[in-house]
Amino acid sequence: MNGYPPTLLSLIAFLKKLPGVGSKTAERFAFHLLAWEEKELGDFADLVSKVKTKILSCRTCGCLQEKEVCPFCNLELRDPKVMCVISSPKDVYLFEQTHTFKGCYHVLGPLLSPLDGKSPDDLHIDSLMTRLEDYKTEEVIIALDSTLEGDATALFLKEALSKLQLRLTRIAFGLPIGSTLDYIDGSTLTQALSGRQNF
Amino acid sequence: MNGYPPTLLSLIAFLKKLPGVGSKTAERFAFHLLAWEEKELGDFADLVSKVKTKILSCRTCGCLQEKEVCPFCNLELRDPKVMCVISSPKDVYLFEQTHTFKGCYHVLGPLLSPLDGKSPDDLHIDSLMTRLEDYKTEEVIIALDSTLEGDATALFLKEALSKLQLRLTRIAFGLPIGSTLDYIDGSTLTQALSGRQNF
Repeated sequence: MNGYPPTLLSLIAFLKKLPGVGSKTAERFAFHLLAWEEKELGDFADLVSKVKTKILSCRTCGCLQEKEVCPFCNLELRDPKVMCVISSPKDVYLFEQTHTFKGCYHVLGPLLSPLDGKSPDDLHIDSLMTRLEDYKTEEVIIALDSTLEGDATALFLKEALSKLQLRLTRIAFGLPIGSTLDYIDGSTLTQALSGRQNF
Repeated sequence: MNGYPPTLLSLIAFLKKLPGVGSKTAERFAFHLLAWEEKELGDFADLVSKVKTKILSCRTCGCLQEKEVCPFCNLELRDPKVMCVISSPKDVYLFEQTHTFKGCYHVLGPLLSPLDGKSPDDLHIDSLMTRLEDYKTEEVIIALDSTLEGDATALFLKEALSKLQLRLTRIAFGLPIGSTLDYIDGSTLTQALSGRQNF
């Protein structure tokens, strides 16, 4: 909006870059920041400027690490026979929260999306292949989104891994736990039906 | 969420303080920031740490100012006979955008809300009274929210200004421009009816 002091305008421009934040929300955020304590703002600014140098990506799996050793690449604690392929390092923590998966992770990178300029060259396929061979992995679990981009990437991965002798699986699609049939769309129901299990 | 690197957790904690931002959104923001360029993060951090020192409140009207002179206190450009009382410096820009108000502004401070600990002591009433007398103001326009807190503050202001010989008005309530009667609630319609104008 015209009239804001230049510093505030610059701050709003930065805040607008955050996902899902439009002009109105960025303005709200900026005015909220103005009400923070000086020390609080300093600490926040300090963190923002250091976050990239403090948090690194593991060169092996692509997960986030802050210490020297990646917490997800310790083969004494994790089973290299099962490899879960995810798109973002964020997804790791969703799986870890379930406390049910003890295999290894591999961050594949952005999902294929020609319109966004994301091509197979952006995927960490080569490092995945090397790891699968080194670890003698027996199963690869594809844990990608159930979207057009996720499906395309999963199919691409299937093709790329077709030469290797391993079991390729994809996480199940179906009814979310706690949901009712009334609110489920037809595609999900079709998937839930075709993926039915013995009970 | 457990498992995130400590730096990321601290960043998420700061982002959660922004208005309307919960855990999930703060996590999205934090991971988005991780994907920013190093230089971009540095510039953003720089702005955040300096915003409080660069942007000041005008001692007279309470509006934001970045230069030595408050842009809203120049009495050669603004008419001191009409004073618009607002709650936040943010509101000034909404009025300025209309290009129809040429009077002065006075930022009153937070709306009265006993539950949030906002009492009459938090309002800049004394400085308002001084300005009204100095400027020989003829009309005070109350431009506060149409909420319980806004109404309470408006009534309090009416009481406080009752001794002064001036016209006290409040911005009109009614149908928003472009809206249809179908979607208007009863209270708004009642206000719109009682505030009807000659046509």
